[in-house]
Amino acid sequence: MSAVDTLRWHGGPAPLLELIDQRVLPRRIRYRRYDARAGAAGVARAIAAMVVRGAPAIGVTAACGMALEAARWRDLPRERLQDRLARGAAVLAASRPTAVNLSWALARCMRVATTHRGDAGALAAALAALAARLIREDVAVNRAIGRHGATLIGDGARVLTHCNAGALATAGYGTALGVVRAARRRIARVWVDETRPFLQGARLTAWELLREGIPCTLITDSMAAHFMQQGQVDAVIVGCDRVAANGDVANKIGTYALALVARAHRVPFYVAGPLSTIDPATATGAAIPIEERTAAEVTGHAGVHWAPDGVAVAHPAFDVTPARLVSALITERGIVHRPNRARIAALLRG
Amino acid sequence: MSAVDTLRWHGGPAPLLELIDQRVLPRRIRYRRYDARAGAAGVARAIAAMVVRGAPAIGVTAACGMALEAARWRDLPRERLQDRLARGAAVLAASRPTAVNLSWALARCMRVATTHRGDAGALAAALAALAARLIREDVAVNRAIGRHGATLIGDGARVLTHCNAGALATAGYGTALGVVRAARRRIARVWVDETRPFLQGARLTAWELLREGIPCTLITDSMAAHFMQQGQVDAVIVGCDRVAANGDVANKIGTYALALVARAHRVPFYVAGPLSTIDPATATGAAIPIEERTAAEVTGHAGVHWAPDGVAVAHPAFDVTPARLVSALITERGIVHRPNRARIAALLRG
Repeated sequence: MSAVDTLRWHGGPAPLLELIDQRVLPRRIRYRRYDARAGAAGVARAIAAMVVRGAPAIGVTAACGMALEAARWRDLPRERLQDRLARGAAVLAASRPTAVNLSWALARCMRVATTHRGDAGALAAALAALAARLIREDVAVNRAIGRHGATLIGDGARVLTHCNAGALATAGYGTALGVVRAARRRIARVWVDETRPFLQGARLTAWELLREGIPCTLITDSMAAHFMQQGQVDAVIVGCDRVAANGDVANKIGTYALALVARAHRVPFYVAGPLSTIDPATATGAAIPIEERTAAEVTGHAGVHWAPDGVAVAHPAFDVTPARLVSALITERGIVHRPNRARIAALLRG
Repeated sequence: MSAVDTLRWHGGPAPLLELIDQRVLPRRIRYRRYDARAGAAGVARAIAAMVVRGAPAIGVTAACGMALEAARWRDLPRERLQDRLARGAAVLAASRPTAVNLSWALARCMRVATTHRGDAGALAAALAALAARLIREDVAVNRAIGRHGATLIGDGARVLTHCNAGALATAGYGTALGVVRAARRRIARVWVDETRPFLQGARLTAWELLREGIPCTLITDSMAAHFMQQGQVDAVIVGCDRVAANGDVANKIGTYALALVARAHRVPFYVAGPLSTIDPATATGAAIPIEERTAAEVTGHAGVHWAPDGVAVAHPAFDVTPARLVSALITERGIVHRPNRARIAALLRG
């Protein structure tokens, strides 16, 4: 089976970003290419259009976008390039509002951009190298999340996941699916929520698991409670788009319902994510901006339109699960059981 | 706006049943016709294929199927016609296992078939008249459910519903949507769960409400908890496919999750249905057979296939909500608050 990468970053004097188009997976494996001419704006459009999605993946993609923007303007004086980069960062930051990894990666880029003392060409090279480093770091972080999280998974476990927090949501390996990968010998079955409306579960998670031969069963989001009632789910594990300072978790719409349903059945509810997903500047989940996406994603899929014309639609793409429903937060630095403000602060202190 | 009927029954010497094809609504309004040659088997296939769906609707449709079967064999001796009818009833009863209205309607037909003392032609006419009576009765029952249920709906209420328990799920008017219709002046908004996988909410409920100008907003099933968390849902009201003697409710998959989520937010959870949906012979929800439908309904829709080939799928079409989560059961005979075995027995005694 050929390797499939979420993104491929080619640094050097003519940098190039390739993104697997997640809108058409698994029916088609197609890479889209972004070079210096695409710049930050082109990459921001790709993120907004969900060519690439998943909090860690859009973070590293944004870093590549900054490096492309720098390559585009590498012949300008350094100060003018820095202005361009600041504007590029603003465009990228606005591409999606909920995941904090985006601002986290952009802040790392801007730290290099504003403190660099070489010429524009050297700054562009430094940003290209930073993008490559963030990609490597993300995979290493996910492997650490996997190792820690695997200790929570018992023999013969039947694990349920929502959305895609897999290799495709990251630079590789995945967060929630990183735990599944690390514990795969003990996992009897993964229940895959299809995750309406964008169907990340049905299209991406099921595909990742099938490719690796990890036993999985696809269900609609509305079936999870039924299988918990039947005693067929031992743990729920999901990724996250932003964790507030008090442990509240923003993640794909449907996560909150799942957390409530898991609690009602005393099924542990685990959230896996890198430290970069924790936002100490956001006090509670109530302060997390929830992206509202287009009605067309709800009224149909892939060109098929099934709802009646003119119907009003609401489409919050994320929801907030209060910390009290989270059994444990799994990070590269270890596991925080029953996360709260004090435990998260302690985690961040290291 | 032209009237749209779930089913049209033409009695007389050459009886004909017309069913609106609910698989292609709302994109196409197409009636399928079933005459004596189609008989019980043709109508059973239509029910199994979900040309018509909804517990009360498949009950009255099955009665029409019996009348068509009788018309088909009206030239046989009465005893041989009775044999044919018994076989037809068995085929119809097997078309879908969960909704008890099907067996209820077939039992009413078989009572006529087995006790009739006229010739086959007279028996066929009696069954055609019975089908017409069950259709009229169902609409009257739904209007009574609506009147009772409307007393539970406060001014400016925002009501959430799942699946389609509307005119299309019945001979007309609807059960859960009957309550909405009866209370429409007080209802500020109806939240419509799309109801994966068959999308009865997105395709049928949204369409019914739009046609009547009742304000509605379409959401995915996974969004209901979010809007309850935001304080935007005042009541949940759903239909039912079978109510056990203890008050446990089988209804469309996703109902149980909704009931749990409603309870967590102290939102009342109402179940509307005719007395014919109560099955005193089923002691508890655990004894209700849950239909498993084809994987193809989960892996795609309307010819679009989005899941990876070869993925395992589970597809329970219904789930069971325990009676303790039901705030009230709304029937044509009145409202049963906090239903349990004793209260349901009292309701059935009348």
